[in-house]
Amino acid sequence: MPKVQNWRGLIEGYRRYLPVTDKTPVITLHEGNTPLIPAPAIAAQIGRQVKVFVKYDGLNPTGSFKDRGMTMAISKAKEAGAEAVICASTGNTSAAAAAYARRGGMRAFVLIPDGYVALGKLAQALLYGAEVLAIHGNFDRALEIVREMSQNYPVTLVNSLNPYRLEGQKTAAFEVVDVLGDAPDWLCIPVGNAGNISAYWMGFCQYHQEGRCTRLPKMMGFQAAGSAPLISGHIISHPETIATAIRIGNPANWQKALAVQESSQGEFNAVTDEEILDAYRLLASGEGIFCEPASAASVAGLLKVKDRVPTGATVVCVLTGNGLKDPDTAIKHSQNQFKQGISPDLEAVAKAMGF
Amino acid sequence: MPKVQNWRGLIEGYRRYLPVTDKTPVITLHEGNTPLIPAPAIAAQIGRQVKVFVKYDGLNPTGSFKDRGMTMAISKAKEAGAEAVICASTGNTSAAAAAYARRGGMRAFVLIPDGYVALGKLAQALLYGAEVLAIHGNFDRALEIVREMSQNYPVTLVNSLNPYRLEGQKTAAFEVVDVLGDAPDWLCIPVGNAGNISAYWMGFCQYHQEGRCTRLPKMMGFQAAGSAPLISGHIISHPETIATAIRIGNPANWQKALAVQESSQGEFNAVTDEEILDAYRLLASGEGIFCEPASAASVAGLLKVKDRVPTGATVVCVLTGNGLKDPDTAIKHSQNQFKQGISPDLEAVAKAMGF
Repeated sequence: MPKVQNWRGLIEGYRRYLPVTDKTPVITLHEGNTPLIPAPAIAAQIGRQVKVFVKYDGLNPTGSFKDRGMTMAISKAKEAGAEAVICASTGNTSAAAAAYARRGGMRAFVLIPDGYVALGKLAQALLYGAEVLAIHGNFDRALEIVREMSQNYPVTLVNSLNPYRLEGQKTAAFEVVDVLGDAPDWLCIPVGNAGNISAYWMGFCQYHQEGRCTRLPKMMGFQAAGSAPLISGHIISHPETIATAIRIGNPANWQKALAVQESSQGEFNAVTDEEILDAYRLLASGEGIFCEPASAASVAGLLKVKDRVPTGATVVCVLTGNGLKDPDTAIKHSQNQFKQGISPDLEAVAKAMGF
Repeated sequence: MPKVQNWRGLIEGYRRYLPVTDKTPVITLHEGNTPLIPAPAIAAQIGRQVKVFVKYDGLNPTGSFKDRGMTMAISKAKEAGAEAVICASTGNTSAAAAAYARRGGMRAFVLIPDGYVALGKLAQALLYGAEVLAIHGNFDRALEIVREMSQNYPVTLVNSLNPYRLEGQKTAAFEVVDVLGDAPDWLCIPVGNAGNISAYWMGFCQYHQEGRCTRLPKMMGFQAAGSAPLISGHIISHPETIATAIRIGNPANWQKALAVQESSQGEFNAVTDEEILDAYRLLASGEGIFCEPASAASVAGLLKVKDRVPTGATVVCVLTGNGLKDPDTAIKHSQNQFKQGISPDLEAVAKAMGF
């Protein structure tokens, strides 16, 4: 009999795989359970019976995969008695932290560099009720201060240094396996701070140990060419890319990411902003899927190395954020037709439409 | 054993309740199966053991409930051999039409009034690959022309006059019943064109006839005060409200809506823009849920008539669209704290945080 399941968020859904107990208050917005959508237009560019799916994590409650980690981090903070949380972030992390903290009845503080961040980027966090503090100083200094604050005051750090974040994020790998029935051959994923690739690998390995999948995927991580420390092998002091969500020159999970690459016999590769935008447009106009530019790095990367995908392989590309997070890029880079000044009669419109 | 279900969209999920056959090509982005989230902060304002849930349809693939109708409309257009679809819309409909049409390999035309629509509103449609035509003339004229076009040229109309739209939308009622185990006592919903309230009622009645719920909800429709023809009883020539998605002075489904009101012993009421914004902020900072202003009309309305909710009742408020669709309103109306110019040291930050 057809019916939707009563999905109550990833902690309830995957409780036995997560560091929670009956005493943990579950702060949830019913995150997770995001669609794994076939991508035939992308698969057609590869051919050879390769099957491509996208894991559309932009359909999480605040619009990005960060919700997976945040439901864990905030629930555990609540369990420990926290009344406030803090992070340094200008984007998806601050939105997720604010939403979950407020839902849990806690204050949410967000530290940003003064004069550097467009107010629009903070629209979500502000509406969710975060208290945003802009300091004189750069982003690295903001991050140092939130660490110090969490060590000296009753406020819990929910930046990616919080270990519960990756625990929550690993459930995306569980969902991929649950829907496909096994792990994919390749998992293509954008890499910035390298937390998500580490979390996916944790998830696949845990499921493999439990016998819920028979194999492990090759982990294919893609960085933006102007912000690719894992490929160049050194810190990038001034990372630059249109994919702002992965514009990180010194990834916090650098060593973890290298271990994932080795264990999974995977690869890191760089994709240019042009390749990212091409994939971004292909996803929208070929598949009907609107993601953040950073998310499109996974598809851009797959297409870049497509000749090496095994014939008949199953590939999953991770789309980390919703395209609605960055409407400016959509307007600037759509390249599609917008015809103005048409006479309001049938003939003129038909002509403009090519009939 | 915990696992997510393999949800392949609402046509597959509710096939036996929909006008499709094995020959219908299913064009889907795995829409539907959206969260039904408890709203304790709203319930607390009512008290008396009333349980409140929000149906967060802004987590559909293009960010609104329109995807439910569009998967049906586009699949049926494809089945009929259409190679192009057309609609007049400046918002959620155009985004959904473009995404599904392109996924189905069809052209998507969107007609808008010249000089009236901000390009930003069309960002999604353009990126999805719609061909946007701006005519000299107002929105009503654009709607007339798309109707004429669909009668005279090989292009299928996917505005709300398309009967498959409501068929798809009714599945939201199925999902509410499937998760709650029965229909709610009240269903609170924003009303603009009055298509969605009609669709929900269709869904509840169909499920009731099939014995899948034991009761039918009271349908509580809420219009914006500056755009409330169903309450005033006459067409509003110049509707005005911050809730643009329900700024409609002459609803296409006027008679259907009145029939729903009567059959369900429901009510239509108006809520002011101020009440809508209060609910919008409460949803974000109290529940962690970010919706379009129009969506918040359902919660604003519930709170307005809260004294009449039966003690212990179960109430579902429909949130039709994602707040990310309208970042400008979030920035303008957040009322939250943004402190600038703080010295980059622990003491200054701690002081700013109130420690």
